[in-house]
Amino acid sequence: MAVYQATASAPVNIACIKYWGKRDTKLILPTNSSLSVTLDQDHLRSTTTSRADPSFKHDRLWLNGEEEEIKDGGRMATCIAEMKRLRKEEVEDKQPNEPKLSTYPVHIASFNNFPTAAGLASSASGFAALVSSLAQLYQLPVSPSTLSVIARQGSGSACRSLFGGFVAWEQGTKPDGSDSLAVQVAPQSHWPDIHALICVVSDDKKGTSSTSGMQRTVETSPLLQHRIKHVVPQRMVDISKAILDRDFDAFAAITMADSNQFHAVALDTEPPIFYMNDVSRAIIALIVEYNRVSVAKGLGRKAAYTYDAGPNAVIYTKKENVKEIVELIVKYFPQKEGSFKDVFGLFGGADVAKSEGSVVEGFNEAVAKKFEVGAVKGLIHTKVGDGPRALGKEETLLGDDGFPKTLA
Amino acid sequence: MAVYQATASAPVNIACIKYWGKRDTKLILPTNSSLSVTLDQDHLRSTTTSRADPSFKHDRLWLNGEEEEIKDGGRMATCIAEMKRLRKEEVEDKQPNEPKLSTYPVHIASFNNFPTAAGLASSASGFAALVSSLAQLYQLPVSPSTLSVIARQGSGSACRSLFGGFVAWEQGTKPDGSDSLAVQVAPQSHWPDIHALICVVSDDKKGTSSTSGMQRTVETSPLLQHRIKHVVPQRMVDISKAILDRDFDAFAAITMADSNQFHAVALDTEPPIFYMNDVSRAIIALIVEYNRVSVAKGLGRKAAYTYDAGPNAVIYTKKENVKEIVELIVKYFPQKEGSFKDVFGLFGGADVAKSEGSVVEGFNEAVAKKFEVGAVKGLIHTKVGDGPRALGKEETLLGDDGFPKTLA
Repeated sequence: MAVYQATASAPVNIACIKYWGKRDTKLILPTNSSLSVTLDQDHLRSTTTSRADPSFKHDRLWLNGEEEEIKDGGRMATCIAEMKRLRKEEVEDKQPNEPKLSTYPVHIASFNNFPTAAGLASSASGFAALVSSLAQLYQLPVSPSTLSVIARQGSGSACRSLFGGFVAWEQGTKPDGSDSLAVQVAPQSHWPDIHALICVVSDDKKGTSSTSGMQRTVETSPLLQHRIKHVVPQRMVDISKAILDRDFDAFAAITMADSNQFHAVALDTEPPIFYMNDVSRAIIALIVEYNRVSVAKGLGRKAAYTYDAGPNAVIYTKKENVKEIVELIVKYFPQKEGSFKDVFGLFGGADVAKSEGSVVEGFNEAVAKKFEVGAVKGLIHTKVGDGPRALGKEETLLGDDGFPKTLA
Repeated sequence: MAVYQATASAPVNIACIKYWGKRDTKLILPTNSSLSVTLDQDHLRSTTTSRADPSFKHDRLWLNGEEEEIKDGGRMATCIAEMKRLRKEEVEDKQPNEPKLSTYPVHIASFNNFPTAAGLASSASGFAALVSSLAQLYQLPVSPSTLSVIARQGSGSACRSLFGGFVAWEQGTKPDGSDSLAVQVAPQSHWPDIHALICVVSDDKKGTSSTSGMQRTVETSPLLQHRIKHVVPQRMVDISKAILDRDFDAFAAITMADSNQFHAVALDTEPPIFYMNDVSRAIIALIVEYNRVSVAKGLGRKAAYTYDAGPNAVIYTKKENVKEIVELIVKYFPQKEGSFKDVFGLFGGADVAKSEGSVVEGFNEAVAKKFEVGAVKGLIHTKVGDGPRALGKEETLLGDDGFPKTLA
């Protein structure tokens, strides 16, 4: 008997123009367009195996080995139902000989290769991997943009993880959301030396969830409407141009301004929402000073910070500057030995925790104090990456019995 | 020989609707109107003695016993020149027998009774006291609003310290600034049970000066223009009504929203400006939770936080709630013994540092962690107060020789 099963992985993406606010909470239609960089799946990814089998009792899902309930009418159920609908309409209705997979229950196993404690949102890569694995299972002849419409209904920013490179989520105008989808602004190959350094920041405060936080902003922030109508549209145009021109200085200026403005409207909310803490602020001070020195030398901005709904910094920079920035961060935020995975061999086997830290000429060291070990819990170095990948049988997360394999 | 000398004191004011941005930096004309509560001079004040004497060589100023240079064309020189001009036009030109004090050099001694380390801006009370003492010295037949026009040119927010109670600074529209002045919305006696608790927050970061910071915001924040044009005008109307109605719930809601929005536009600046730190954020979390409980009980908001260009919190509340709020703050921010000056006898001689802290019924204690001693360096309890006071000879800061007395 045939086994209908497919495995896919999908990347994390970190926005440069931030998504904050829904105009339709059920369909997850945003109040403004957004734009992100897709990060490399070699380092951070969600992997999902989906199997359709008429013998299964009902749809089931396991996340990192633990079963999660698929709630009726919930986001997960919506995504699965939409994928089954596409299977029926695009495949089975047109080719009557194809198996009626849309009528079979599915078992889905998903795994994130980064710990929850890292504070990286896994919903974007997770829903993108889910949709990608089902698209592969169902042999859907549809574009990533079409799939992005479905992933969007799982988690808004998931739609941007359907592409590699530099990705825009166009807000769209239709009430049914069919034009609220992701498009690729430029592939990874267009500007492959965009690297990212994720600074995982310790936080002793439980943050406001982005889902509830963004709606409070929509309801109470007087500034959000101005941002939506008068700021973001031009920034989308400007940052797309910066990417196409490989103009890092402009890319950095817009990215930082938009991170600041997202946190500004969060603060303009009642009651105010804070995601950044004193460590986040200190990292900003370092990057501002690093850029000040670089601009003074006529080199333009060399780094761009951006913060999502949490205290972690993501620093975008060109490959050639990463080592210098890692050393700068480590100088102010001492790391535990062996904590940095030097995947690009920047330190050639030397422990970054023992790095003396290069002195950037002209850098005013007083812009931040030196923090205690653990203030920045870890550093992850990655780069712009590709879109979802179809994986082979050796990567499957479901055993022959259709249940999750025990992870070694 | 006659001695021409006068001494005045003037209060600190803390804005509920924030002043942030100038449309004319020389005349100090603001981009929006603002509104403040004048605090009681019994607790916080600047005192200034001015003497005019033809034997003096030139205008001189001593601040807290140290001589400060009066720079040509600087703000201090402008204020003194404007006061001399008023003396000439309003007194000497009209009454030729009056002595020509406007032609005499002045010696000015000023003293703030609160330490610079408290992080309270002394420029507002300082310029208000300067202008008040000169107005008294010169026997000027002019209103506090007229004097406020001159104090404004020393330090913008100083104009609001020319009145007691609840004071609006109307931005005005004239290019010469003659209609950019302070008016009293309501006197202290209208709502005397508005109290203020200042939480002096420790900071290890040198902040951005408000003078340079606000102009960076004017130049770079896309959100500021919306605030100026579309948010502040209505808030000025609404908070004035709340004050006239003694509607604390509305007063608190607007005050907190405007503090948040001021910090939001600071954050929307390039590079971003942060004045609040993790301790400031924790105090906000406590007040938000305190109000949540109170609103749930049908009592409305009982407290309002507001933050100026620094990490200190000022909490406005009605007299009846101060003790509860002090205990709440002390619970999360332990105080050193003997550090709290219990000027209103809330604790009847007991040391607030030893207070167990009352438990507010229904309060979720997990909204903030308990900080170490020193995170909040001190608490100052005061209340709405009166405007500048003319003081008697026993308060003079200048000796018979016309030079500052040595302060005992």
